[in-house]
Amino acid sequence: MTQHFDVLATCGHARAGILRTPHGQVETPVFMPVGTQATVKSLSSGDLESLDAPIILGNTYHLAMRPGHALIARMGGLHTFMSWPRAILTDSGGFQVFSQSGRRTIDEDGVTFQSHVDGSAQRLTPESAMAIQAALGSDIAMAFDECPPSDADGAVLRKAMERTTRWARRCLESPRPLGQLRFGIVQGGTDVDLRLGHLAEIAAMPFEGVALGGLSVGEPPEVMHEVVGQVAPKMPAERPRYLMGVGRPQDLLAGIASGIDMFDCVMPTRNARNGHLFVPAGHLNIANTGFRDDPRPLDEACSCEACRRYSRGYLAHLFRSKEILYYRLATLHNLQYYLNLVRGARQAILDGRLDSYIAERLAGMEPVAEDLGQGG
Amino acid sequence: MTQHFDVLATCGHARAGILRTPHGQVETPVFMPVGTQATVKSLSSGDLESLDAPIILGNTYHLAMRPGHALIARMGGLHTFMSWPRAILTDSGGFQVFSQSGRRTIDEDGVTFQSHVDGSAQRLTPESAMAIQAALGSDIAMAFDECPPSDADGAVLRKAMERTTRWARRCLESPRPLGQLRFGIVQGGTDVDLRLGHLAEIAAMPFEGVALGGLSVGEPPEVMHEVVGQVAPKMPAERPRYLMGVGRPQDLLAGIASGIDMFDCVMPTRNARNGHLFVPAGHLNIANTGFRDDPRPLDEACSCEACRRYSRGYLAHLFRSKEILYYRLATLHNLQYYLNLVRGARQAILDGRLDSYIAERLAGMEPVAEDLGQGG
Repeated sequence: MTQHFDVLATCGHARAGILRTPHGQVETPVFMPVGTQATVKSLSSGDLESLDAPIILGNTYHLAMRPGHALIARMGGLHTFMSWPRAILTDSGGFQVFSQSGRRTIDEDGVTFQSHVDGSAQRLTPESAMAIQAALGSDIAMAFDECPPSDADGAVLRKAMERTTRWARRCLESPRPLGQLRFGIVQGGTDVDLRLGHLAEIAAMPFEGVALGGLSVGEPPEVMHEVVGQVAPKMPAERPRYLMGVGRPQDLLAGIASGIDMFDCVMPTRNARNGHLFVPAGHLNIANTGFRDDPRPLDEACSCEACRRYSRGYLAHLFRSKEILYYRLATLHNLQYYLNLVRGARQAILDGRLDSYIAERLAGMEPVAEDLGQGG
Repeated sequence: MTQHFDVLATCGHARAGILRTPHGQVETPVFMPVGTQATVKSLSSGDLESLDAPIILGNTYHLAMRPGHALIARMGGLHTFMSWPRAILTDSGGFQVFSQSGRRTIDEDGVTFQSHVDGSAQRLTPESAMAIQAALGSDIAMAFDECPPSDADGAVLRKAMERTTRWARRCLESPRPLGQLRFGIVQGGTDVDLRLGHLAEIAAMPFEGVALGGLSVGEPPEVMHEVVGQVAPKMPAERPRYLMGVGRPQDLLAGIASGIDMFDCVMPTRNARNGHLFVPAGHLNIANTGFRDDPRPLDEACSCEACRRYSRGYLAHLFRSKEILYYRLATLHNLQYYLNLVRGARQAILDGRLDSYIAERLAGMEPVAEDLGQGG
């Protein structure tokens, strides 16, 4: 079970590793850009290659609704469809189905819900979630889990965990394409004892990786850090550990320090589109008037296209003018920041200096001066 | 006056030339992509370089309204602001001011109008239009002209021509940056006699190029072709000839055959965003259902990023999903088509086979099969 993953070095709980997929090696820790609808919003696959992203995430729910996994399979699978030769992890659709508004009904077999595209009745089960991910041809498929609300009480959490365990077994019994890896998902809210109990169940199954789901869903960041700090070090050491849907730069650093190997989050891409750009000194809001005639790049040291060729003033103009180019340049920049942050942490683990790396990065994470006290 | 332009070869009325600007040589005939707000919509300057576009058009009116020419001048001029090292032609703002809805009043000195950005009262005169273009630092500045409505009668056309001539003199008396070329504009609607009369006036002035304005503003294409066919061969042979705001692929070919050297039009970029994509066999509407699972590229022979990496099916998915990436890929493709069409015409002129080139290209210009009888 370990030939797909090797830990090369550790630094405290943190690990630097190599994850092998049918579409290339992934150096961990790694941040996975989110490509919901077969594109990381505003970016081409060439753009993602220019950022040297080794793996992206695709959303099973969205792709199944539009254009449909059968169509993608006919077009040669998700890699061919979006012209992306590197690795893809697909989520199971569970999170989207459970978090979307509108009617949905859960039973032991699966979930019935309405399509956000056309309102039609749809159904996902552990078997169909795995079949969709097989049709998409992802390198890593996630088990179909029940995601309880963030404010669920212990009884609800426990029932969701138990059902997630039963569904996990059904996922493992489903057919899979050659080489596809499967990750199980640990639920349990912010209750460390529940988490550890569920972890024992999931870790006992022959998943190639183990994920923490149901975090960063509304609880305070310190609570999330505490749970991850308690649980991550006890996740199977020989398998990759994935913290789903997390998070802010400081959350990634905390997760890495606790032994997490993989992350995904819409924050860098969504924030980019909203004008929030990450820089070493923290973040800035490009809508603020002070940037209108600022001739400096976002970050002198950044190698993204936005920083190599354009000024803050130009980006501020594009943002105010709602020009399409803004979204691409801002997205490139924020993803470059996230990827560099995590790559830097990996190197620091290999060099045995993760603590100082994290301290240095956290020290700078304040809004830059022009951003203080001004509205978005 | 001729050191900035050389005609290398002719083929009938058509010419292949070289236009020299402070930001590089432009091989003519040339199509200039329209970069209204300091960006060709959805494209970066690197994208335009990938298409090998030697010159783009910037809109004086839009840039003066937002972010303002004074700001762009402080940021180093339009080339630096948008990180575009090649040539830029700026229009004078006249067309936008005269064609926009809302109140505007024309007097002998200039035009008062409302900003489309904030509704504020604004004024353009021949002197201020040239001063704005000087602040932008464009390579080619257009004279400020009065653009009469497309349905204007002879008396209105004549008054607009006379005022345009007086304004042209004032434009030439305005200061200009070192090396900036200035083009005069010929009005006269679709009346060939009026056109030739106004051409004589504008051609007598020391402009470095002469343009035809006020065409492709609603008249039938055959009428426009007839006017250009009568007027273009009589434009000064030693100066570049620019047909403003034209047009469809067949209009470019007709213009080239009549001796036009330069074109601009929003058609390739705007049509791209609306789903209308140009291919050798004509054009297609990517919204049509037949393209949803079409694994072929838009055009096997096209070298744009959309054709090198993606299928019609993927583009159809992005279009239906309103994904930002669609707009960039479609724009790259349509501009590649336009630039190749005109480059091909230039080579055909050099080879003395323009007639057969045009006949071949026109023969294919029909909607492709999947596009027939289906809605947008």
